[in-house]
Amino acid sequence: MHPLVRSVEYAVRGALPIRAEALSKQLQNGEKLGFDRVVFCNIGNPQQLNQKPITFFRQVASLCENPELLKAENRQLVEKLYPKDAIARAELLLKNIGSIGAYSHSKGIPFIRENVAKFIERRDGYPANPEHIFLTQGASSGVQTVLQILTQHNKCGIMIPIPQYPLYSATLSLVDAQPVPYYLNEKQNWGLNVDDLKKSVEESRAKGVDVRALVIINPGNPTGQCLSEENMREIIDFCHTEHLVLLADEVYQTNIYQPEQRPFHSFKKVLMSMGEKYQDQELFSFHSTSKGMIGECGRRGGYLECVNIDEQVLDQLYKIASISLCPNVHGQIMVDLMTNPPAEGDISHEQFKSENDAIYESLRRRATKLATCFNSLEGMTCNDAEGAMYLFPQIQIPEKAIEAAKEKNMAPDAFYAMAMLEATGVCVIPGTGFGQEPGTWHFRSTFLPEEHLFDSFCSAIEKFHQGFMDKYRA
Amino acid sequence: MHPLVRSVEYAVRGALPIRAEALSKQLQNGEKLGFDRVVFCNIGNPQQLNQKPITFFRQVASLCENPELLKAENRQLVEKLYPKDAIARAELLLKNIGSIGAYSHSKGIPFIRENVAKFIERRDGYPANPEHIFLTQGASSGVQTVLQILTQHNKCGIMIPIPQYPLYSATLSLVDAQPVPYYLNEKQNWGLNVDDLKKSVEESRAKGVDVRALVIINPGNPTGQCLSEENMREIIDFCHTEHLVLLADEVYQTNIYQPEQRPFHSFKKVLMSMGEKYQDQELFSFHSTSKGMIGECGRRGGYLECVNIDEQVLDQLYKIASISLCPNVHGQIMVDLMTNPPAEGDISHEQFKSENDAIYESLRRRATKLATCFNSLEGMTCNDAEGAMYLFPQIQIPEKAIEAAKEKNMAPDAFYAMAMLEATGVCVIPGTGFGQEPGTWHFRSTFLPEEHLFDSFCSAIEKFHQGFMDKYRA
Repeated sequence: MHPLVRSVEYAVRGALPIRAEALSKQLQNGEKLGFDRVVFCNIGNPQQLNQKPITFFRQVASLCENPELLKAENRQLVEKLYPKDAIARAELLLKNIGSIGAYSHSKGIPFIRENVAKFIERRDGYPANPEHIFLTQGASSGVQTVLQILTQHNKCGIMIPIPQYPLYSATLSLVDAQPVPYYLNEKQNWGLNVDDLKKSVEESRAKGVDVRALVIINPGNPTGQCLSEENMREIIDFCHTEHLVLLADEVYQTNIYQPEQRPFHSFKKVLMSMGEKYQDQELFSFHSTSKGMIGECGRRGGYLECVNIDEQVLDQLYKIASISLCPNVHGQIMVDLMTNPPAEGDISHEQFKSENDAIYESLRRRATKLATCFNSLEGMTCNDAEGAMYLFPQIQIPEKAIEAAKEKNMAPDAFYAMAMLEATGVCVIPGTGFGQEPGTWHFRSTFLPEEHLFDSFCSAIEKFHQGFMDKYRA
Repeated sequence: MHPLVRSVEYAVRGALPIRAEALSKQLQNGEKLGFDRVVFCNIGNPQQLNQKPITFFRQVASLCENPELLKAENRQLVEKLYPKDAIARAELLLKNIGSIGAYSHSKGIPFIRENVAKFIERRDGYPANPEHIFLTQGASSGVQTVLQILTQHNKCGIMIPIPQYPLYSATLSLVDAQPVPYYLNEKQNWGLNVDDLKKSVEESRAKGVDVRALVIINPGNPTGQCLSEENMREIIDFCHTEHLVLLADEVYQTNIYQPEQRPFHSFKKVLMSMGEKYQDQELFSFHSTSKGMIGECGRRGGYLECVNIDEQVLDQLYKIASISLCPNVHGQIMVDLMTNPPAEGDISHEQFKSENDAIYESLRRRATKLATCFNSLEGMTCNDAEGAMYLFPQIQIPEKAIEAAKEKNMAPDAFYAMAMLEATGVCVIPGTGFGQEPGTWHFRSTFLPEEHLFDSFCSAIEKFHQGFMDKYRA
């Protein structure tokens, strides 16, 4: 077996979730545990926790799936079940796609790529080229392909944040390239310090690492920060000076909870605003249908935009995409819907807006509630979520618990998270799965449990934490 | 850029299809060419050429997509649009899946893996373990993951047939492993000769290649042969003796056109029938929803079954699968439907059977018609398709055409195929894209154009071929 395969770590679906699944099965089989249900806070998977899908999106998708419904003889019945704009959108999509059961263009359906380009133009105020957009199976597959193309041998390095989403370290492991870590600053609400970036790249280059690119996750995962435009300009300037390709993971761009102080800016927009000098800065930007208020994770839809990327590299990206034939068409349709939801004046606009806003407001309330809960606990501190779907609190784990963890050959934060799971059914991921400053301990939890369950969710954690601290307090 | 990325070749979506797309755009823009439409015979993509999807499958899929339709208040209307068994199946699936918008288990939805295991048991008469089944995004992603796991360094070799489906060579290129080619015997209707296999593995091992696995595509792609049970036993015995993992690409298992003389046998079944001695033979078998009479290519659905595979390797497969989170759920649903179509007695059984049989009989007629056409042409010989969706005729290309190709820096078969495309709009793939015995020239064509267009499709090829031979004949 490939040694790189063996060395890969992927905590989001690692030991904790595997144990959580086993507990869930025990409950299903009628066994009695100390809790009624396992709450999967290990992964940003909103519909698993009963977030309702956006009605219009599902209506259009189901009509594309069954074009028989669009035939004249069914029209009368179907118009009782579907609003006219959903029917019209499905017809438009099918006209441009043909059958959704056919392989599409390997870069994605041209009509949808054109729509994505228009969306980016509206968002940023700068033009986008449909030929530089690749539809992908979730953002993950786009990231994997780009990392594969950017690396060449095991001395190639890619800068990744610590803490990071483990897709990055796992993929670098698989392509045998080196992660070049830089730390996010917890005390500055997980912001980036360009001096730290410089130090990190210099140290790695001094060791002979060929550092080629910088990954930024904004809004952050697992850390939830949202970068200021000023900070983004510094980062772009840094990449430009150091000849680094910038990979911007922007899948949480609509999960923004402090829109006044911390609005989302795309790296594309900020780069474009920086004038001629920077217009050779290479940038890949990733987006997904899995996050935001959509949460259509199971569909595996997403796109990547290539900015200032050499035509030869674009050709290679196309070739790699073609080996897997095409991204799944259902995911592509969801990308179309995400980037073109019902507009003001459309029949379904009001319903869309109210569903979208309700999910957004609820996420915002839950983010605050959970941060408040964490900050009320002994030895725990937690930054507010400016964006994304996660909190990443720091815990002061008592010495006796650290010793107990050592005895079990576990990291202290994994020991804590496992104890929480066993006691409450709440599954979170220890900070070791994402990386953290040595000597600090964290965990990542989504704030996705349903709002009507949220108080009992918080109090279960409080109760567990109190018991844990009582047990291990010196 | 990664040198391995650059070296990958993927002809099925290479120069010919790119030119075909450009011609198609010209026609769309109203330009006059020597033909009315581009006919994409470069890829097994039935619904692109208007093959109708199986009604029941799309009904169930559309109900899963829009569960609002299943609510009591819509029931009366929906029962006028959908048969009761489609409604019941969608309800059963949703009960076991939850929302199709959620990430599933990384190996695929447990309920569907159980159904796949039962399908394999019915097909083969031997048990299958749902925990050894991974749902995948088409067969391609399964093949890519397994090849990644089996190879370790650039001295690892994997035996692949020549001609082959270029997914194999392209993936080996990407993972930096060596293809160890063995030739299929055109004179014996593309059968495998075990002596050739032995010679190939011995030669490679003598050169220091660590040969680890043998890939077999059965029914063959691009060659269309279907292996006899006797031949399969020899191959399994060969793998067992040589300690090779067997990778069986069985995606065309229902595309069988001579079911009396050449029925399909799965490698799993033949292996199981060979007694105790062989029960440590490792086997991966791949299947897909893209082929057969389903042709749901755009959905990217498939599965792989692991037979006699070490638990540690299974763990690693699971880990790799988890990095991409899960296969798309729509593809998973189609795997469920493929392996559990309406049964006798079900309301939709008759319609399912008549649609399925009509596609099958038509494919069989078209396969024969196209082979007859090719065999009638000067200097062209073509084996019958025993299975799959392709013919792979050999052409005697005249010396003058070979010279003309050389001047254009093209392989002679690519030159021929490009001339065919420019003259007729028919896009086929030259044999160089699949590999062929040196000094022989071939092309691969699907027989998927619609049956009512088939005569004009054949006569366009005949007319072109005659003109080509007249022009270049010595």
